[in-house]
Amino acid sequence: MRDFSHDRTALSLNTATLGHNLDGHGAGWTPEQVIDGCAERGFGGIVFWRRELGNRAAEIGERVRAAGLRVDGLCRTPYLTGRDAGSDAEIQASIDMAAALGAPILTIVTGGTEPGTKGGAESRKRLADRIARHAPHASDCAVRLAIEPLNPMFGGNRTCVFTVRDALEVCGLVSMENVGIAVDVYHVWWDATLEESLEEATDHIYGYHLCDWLEDTGDMLLDRGMMGDGVADLKFIRSAVEAAGYSGPCEVEIFSARDWWLRPPGEVLDKIVDRFHTHC
Amino acid sequence: MRDFSHDRTALSLNTATLGHNLDGHGAGWTPEQVIDGCAERGFGGIVFWRRELGNRAAEIGERVRAAGLRVDGLCRTPYLTGRDAGSDAEIQASIDMAAALGAPILTIVTGGTEPGTKGGAESRKRLADRIARHAPHASDCAVRLAIEPLNPMFGGNRTCVFTVRDALEVCGLVSMENVGIAVDVYHVWWDATLEESLEEATDHIYGYHLCDWLEDTGDMLLDRGMMGDGVADLKFIRSAVEAAGYSGPCEVEIFSARDWWLRPPGEVLDKIVDRFHTHC
Repeated sequence: MRDFSHDRTALSLNTATLGHNLDGHGAGWTPEQVIDGCAERGFGGIVFWRRELGNRAAEIGERVRAAGLRVDGLCRTPYLTGRDAGSDAEIQASIDMAAALGAPILTIVTGGTEPGTKGGAESRKRLADRIARHAPHASDCAVRLAIEPLNPMFGGNRTCVFTVRDALEVCGLVSMENVGIAVDVYHVWWDATLEESLEEATDHIYGYHLCDWLEDTGDMLLDRGMMGDGVADLKFIRSAVEAAGYSGPCEVEIFSARDWWLRPPGEVLDKIVDRFHTHC
Repeated sequence: MRDFSHDRTALSLNTATLGHNLDGHGAGWTPEQVIDGCAERGFGGIVFWRRELGNRAAEIGERVRAAGLRVDGLCRTPYLTGRDAGSDAEIQASIDMAAALGAPILTIVTGGTEPGTKGGAESRKRLADRIARHAPHASDCAVRLAIEPLNPMFGGNRTCVFTVRDALEVCGLVSMENVGIAVDVYHVWWDATLEESLEEATDHIYGYHLCDWLEDTGDMLLDRGMMGDGVADLKFIRSAVEAAGYSGPCEVEIFSARDWWLRPPGEVLDKIVDRFHTHC
């Protein structure tokens, strides 16, 4: 297991953590301010959201690299299943945006249960078909696709992939070299089978996301905790992820309308650095 | 699989469905009104909550049986783990209340992560110790204890048992004949391993709870759907539960502050009967 007590090379910021990818939240820092703030503090990389990039993906990617940082990923495809699924053109555009940004990873939040079906199994089959249709283009763009299981509370309208095991089942159905998974502690911390599931994931973990699960989580979407403030066993989860071969970025992604999004971004970044060394 | 298209013997009402176990919700029907309403409509049984019974458990139990209905259970023990765990005396009192009511089953919602620990594993060990301490008294009272896994969104402060597999692991640690599990579709509908987990549960499923998972669930606790209005595959789940040997009541438990708790209780009961025959 890597020692992060004095090393922040792996530390990556998901820009959602500063709140500015949701209207009315956060201090509204521009991508340039975020890049400078991360570079000053020795972060290793940044993960952006599509809405921040507009038609400036290539320009912003260059700016990141010029600051000595990595672009670690792009968040995320439109939904691929469920009532709110995006079109093929929209999905392809998200792949093209990742390529323009120079992002090696594009995260997939799958979308919910397919209309006219029940449960998750049929939706996961259709999800696999849809990913298989887009993965070759992603491969041509040197973009890997990371299927992210979401906490089961997001079933219905946001996901049909609830566990690492579900995500690996979909990867197996797609069976392409550039399709893997992302592991977010918020979504998987509760899973007693996590360690054994991850053993099957060798070399197909494309992302590891950090935050914490607050003991009194009061909002499904926007009440994530800072690492160390909750009950997730962060070091245990990372050890399992690394035992499965992962050696990539640790991406901090905290949706927190009640707490962290109300604070100055510089203070949030400082706290992340501190907690990364001591709690992750 | 049992045919419920014309048979409501197994249909049971969890009184929470009428909202009156939470202050400010529901029409405030007394236990007697609930009993009469269920008897008129041919329900098979009722499950009460402790707060409704006060010191009238024995009297209300008699009233239920006199109306030709079963008392199917009592909801529930105080928490056994976590910051808000009850005392041994409080837990024993809930067992005694179940016995006075004549309830064969007392449901356990476990409580959250134990103070000073992370994740769920250590809490589940302590939970097993605590259940083992109280199960002999329950056995003396002819009360079976049903550990109910909760949707992972209730991790932290409400549960440390997230899946049927987790619950069976705790049953295995306790290893007493009167300790089993309750399966609620709201909590387990998403679990792709449900069928294989239930295969291990033979003869230790002590309860089966019905509602539905709404596609757009807007509140963690109080936005459950009526059977047929959501995306849970109800018939598939019941077939798996019955394949594991369950032949007991199907208990309708719908927390719904936005919808069903706003309606007249008689209308809610009529709808339950209809949906039980057509969707469950």
